Amino acid sequence: MFRTHTCGALRLSDVGKEVVLSGWVQRIRDKGTLLWIDLRDRYGITQLFLETGLSDQKVIDKARALGREYVIRVEGTVVERESKNPNIPTGEIEIRVTQIEQLNASKTPPFTIEDNTDGGDELRMKYRYLDLRRNSLKNNIMLRHKLAMQTRYYLDSQGFLEIETPYLIKSTPEGARDFVVPSRMNPGEFYALPQSPQQYKQILMVSGFDKYFQIVRCFRDEDLRADRQPEFTQIDCEMSYISQEDILNTFEGMTRHLFNKIKGITFDTFERMDWHTAMKFYGSDKPDLRFGMAFVELNDLAKGKGLGIFDEAELIIGIKAENCAEYTRKQLDALTDFVKRPQIGAKGLVYVKYNTDGTIKSSVDKFYSPEDLKLWTDRFGAKPGDLLLILSGNTDAVRKQMNELRLEMGNQLGLRDPNVFKPLWVVDFPLLEWDKETKRYYAMHHPFTSPKPEDIALLETNPENVRANAYDLVINGVEIGGGSIRIHDRELQRKMFSLLGFSDQEAQNQFGFLMDAFEYGAPPHGGIALGFDRLVAMFGGQDSIRDFIAFPKNNAGRDMMADSPSTIATAQLDELQIALKATKKE
Amino acid sequence: MFRTHTCGALRLSDVGKEVVLSGWVQRIRDKGTLLWIDLRDRYGITQLFLETGLSDQKVIDKARALGREYVIRVEGTVVERESKNPNIPTGEIEIRVTQIEQLNASKTPPFTIEDNTDGGDELRMKYRYLDLRRNSLKNNIMLRHKLAMQTRYYLDSQGFLEIETPYLIKSTPEGARDFVVPSRMNPGEFYALPQSPQQYKQILMVSGFDKYFQIVRCFRDEDLRADRQPEFTQIDCEMSYISQEDILNTFEGMTRHLFNKIKGITFDTFERMDWHTAMKFYGSDKPDLRFGMAFVELNDLAKGKGLGIFDEAELIIGIKAENCAEYTRKQLDALTDFVKRPQIGAKGLVYVKYNTDGTIKSSVDKFYSPEDLKLWTDRFGAKPGDLLLILSGNTDAVRKQMNELRLEMGNQLGLRDPNVFKPLWVVDFPLLEWDKETKRYYAMHHPFTSPKPEDIALLETNPENVRANAYDLVINGVEIGGGSIRIHDRELQRKMFSLLGFSDQEAQNQFGFLMDAFEYGAPPHGGIALGFDRLVAMFGGQDSIRDFIAFPKNNAGRDMMADSPSTIATAQLDELQIALKATKKE
Repeated sequence: MFRTHTCGALRLSDVGKEVVLSGWVQRIRDKGTLLWIDLRDRYGITQLFLETGLSDQKVIDKARALGREYVIRVEGTVVERESKNPNIPTGEIEIRVTQIEQLNASKTPPFTIEDNTDGGDELRMKYRYLDLRRNSLKNNIMLRHKLAMQTRYYLDSQGFLEIETPYLIKSTPEGARDFVVPSRMNPGEFYALPQSPQQYKQILMVSGFDKYFQIVRCFRDEDLRADRQPEFTQIDCEMSYISQEDILNTFEGMTRHLFNKIKGITFDTFERMDWHTAMKFYGSDKPDLRFGMAFVELNDLAKGKGLGIFDEAELIIGIKAENCAEYTRKQLDALTDFVKRPQIGAKGLVYVKYNTDGTIKSSVDKFYSPEDLKLWTDRFGAKPGDLLLILSGNTDAVRKQMNELRLEMGNQLGLRDPNVFKPLWVVDFPLLEWDKETKRYYAMHHPFTSPKPEDIALLETNPENVRANAYDLVINGVEIGGGSIRIHDRELQRKMFSLLGFSDQEAQNQFGFLMDAFEYGAPPHGGIALGFDRLVAMFGGQDSIRDFIAFPKNNAGRDMMADSPSTIATAQLDELQIALKATKKE
Repeated sequence: MFRTHTCGALRLSDVGKEVVLSGWVQRIRDKGTLLWIDLRDRYGITQLFLETGLSDQKVIDKARALGREYVIRVEGTVVERESKNPNIPTGEIEIRVTQIEQLNASKTPPFTIEDNTDGGDELRMKYRYLDLRRNSLKNNIMLRHKLAMQTRYYLDSQGFLEIETPYLIKSTPEGARDFVVPSRMNPGEFYALPQSPQQYKQILMVSGFDKYFQIVRCFRDEDLRADRQPEFTQIDCEMSYISQEDILNTFEGMTRHLFNKIKGITFDTFERMDWHTAMKFYGSDKPDLRFGMAFVELNDLAKGKGLGIFDEAELIIGIKAENCAEYTRKQLDALTDFVKRPQIGAKGLVYVKYNTDGTIKSSVDKFYSPEDLKLWTDRFGAKPGDLLLILSGNTDAVRKQMNELRLEMGNQLGLRDPNVFKPLWVVDFPLLEWDKETKRYYAMHHPFTSPKPEDIALLETNPENVRANAYDLVINGVEIGGGSIRIHDRELQRKMFSLLGFSDQEAQNQFGFLMDAFEYGAPPHGGIALGFDRLVAMFGGQDSIRDFIAFPKNNAGRDMMADSPSTIATAQLDELQIALKATKKE
């Protein structure tokens, strides 16, 4: 038997017991006559103890031959520690060792297996199996398991069925960013890996499974941004005979359940905000509501006083940073530099300091009298000591810039506490986006997203004003999920396709079997998909998803541990009836 | 609101309630002044009722315009039925309809949505979304969900963590039957889809996650036998610091839990049988123990009497079919034809009838006296009325043939009741198989499977006699799962590789990062993988897995509904830097 207890189990009440433990050698302290070993497994650390004279010399010699990360099995007696360690649950006891068996040796690990390791990112990715021994990663993976279990508990309790959809699906002509898989049995033909089970889950609604979910892997072959993975996991859901309200309530319920079970946090009803409001006051369709600083518009107050940059601007907006009037020139310059960075692109930053002595000082004093500026501070509801930060320009651009500045100020002022959670439904997204280059409308969500019934008439006259039955779940400024009520009416679907410039044939090519299925009695339905990696990272209080995935890939889509992707044998290519193209000289 | 109740919910106690239901029109019966509609959803069927004079004529007209599989929403009152239907839970009530809203029309389905449909296999695969509306398929998919949930409940309760492993993994030179995925970001390089997460789960053991599981999709690009799928689902598990006994107990516990929760069946301890016994008495490593008919060996009694076929045979074995002495010549000829079929390959069949009057009649009376044959029936423990069926030949071949005959007799005699379950652990598999063609040993399980410690010495002298710490879970003659204790000792691993003819370099190529990981303290570990599709089919009382998968592929690996795989655009091939080979003329 390898163990009677785990390394996290023993307490003062176990003193006197004969036990067997197995695990990894975390640390050895050899004080000559006394020798301690910290033994580690998934459950914790237990201190082992040997003493010259008291312990068998052969066992002591075995202990001295051990190294870090050796795998051992020990027998011994639980005794009370003389100097207790209050920082670990087993800190009151240690094991007086009578037997040691070395189960396996270990090379010296290339970095320390500690909470604060000395290993760099690259090294830890290559030796992922060692990195996963560290508490932080181990806890992330355990958190992921818990979240998946609780998600399933909840949805099962609500009558949802988890139904597995295929991973080898149909490749469509428009399937850019599809990973494809050559079929040996059908030479010259390919499967695709799903970017999402969207069509299959809608098919399941046509089949009558009115509450579907799946925690499912999805794939996207795109140039990876900082925190994207070519394969990622989604909580994918769809319901029939429901309205948008039913979906919001169901998944609000699920989210509350998760926060309650995992973090012991309860919420009042989630806030809701329509898309236009979110853009107007936060410049983002995923506002972080852990702090205020909603945008204040100043066009009427700021224009017409001779300041060119304002007079020419489509929109002038500001945010109020409370108690920041004491910001130094250096701090203000740094903020100006921040908004002028190319990825943000503002031309400059105007500030107004409402000093604690009641005076007002701004970077545009030449153009505005103290009385003018008082009107500004009044509109912000500012009090002495506050700082106003103001940007101007084209509406869409300036809102995006101000969003970045607002988030930066939130960071600087410590207003984005990872232990505070502010969930929000953003609703009433526009149905369509106009693309200036191709001069046509695109579906903002996808072509099956239904318009709000009261806006259908606008499809003919003002398509850009049509609101969709689409919604996003946003927590702390992160888009956790999104979905929509789908179109199930064929007449409306035809109208949508024609607005989007799809011919019947194109619609058939791209959405083939789903279009066919819709001929046989599609029920009203809608759904949502939540990014599971993102959700776990949020519960773990971190921004990056990478350390919440056991075996992630790097930004080039490579698995550093397995050294994948890799070349394959010519024989295998032959069997698949494909060939590599000669790579162009560069 | 689309519904206040589902179509399976209403009972006599609901009479008088105003309700709203939505669903599909299963059937319309129009008797002139009376009109009934069966309304169906996932939960059941509810009868709707309209009557001229009593119901609004406009509503009646709407009802008359409906067709099969139309989607409707109705309002009405629950009333007690005059003629009750005891076969369905809602059979005591019907809905007196006051409003009908047609939510969607439907073309006439190409086959009937009934338990016994008129649709052929091909048609039903093409219109899978309609086939899934049928009770039998719907119930299979719901059963699958329940089994997956209960599997997770159980393993979670035992401290297992579900950990997701990558689907885009490393392609290995020896990875025949791998599906591969060209990488756009790494031109000329490929990922592979996993045939199983074997290496990753062993890595997780090295990482210290001592109890891992995953319900996971696996992929194999092989010519499909009758009941294989290119993608299939596995319950994949691995444990550290355990012996074979721990694994058997854990997964016996899981299997009991599933049978208990899903079917209300409890078991005594599962039977165990070593591989040699299974082969000797059942001619199969997955014997169906729902019935007896263990093989009886007759070499000593049957040889030396002048019957050439027996005298030349390596092995003479028989089975006893109780109460079958009355089998007619025609029945016996049919059995002879059965064993002579090319896929079975016996030369003939010898029978011995132990008649109810005590006389013995055989097909080899010319060679054996009644006294000779009495010795045979005694060895079988036969009683008057029993029939012995005897085959002879090369040991391995005749056992395989007799296995087929035994199963056939089990079928004919109704001894293989799909509602009876006989789980069995087959243990002590041989570690190695000798391949006559390539004249080398192959690992019967895989090269990391550990030999039994007491057999290690035989590795040098008698490799074919070494037994492995490998085990299969067999239920009713079906292999539900299998696994092994892995080698974690590097010296032993090196010996195994050398026996299998792997050079160090080859081992490194094929098992790369796992070999590396093993340098850093691999714990003793082992695992098991259960075929989930097969398990669900067994719980559903069926042999074929296809109808327990929502969207299966056919024997050519094609998805008939989606018409996949398919060709992809040249532009996409270009981006992946691959080209199709001109197909050879045939």
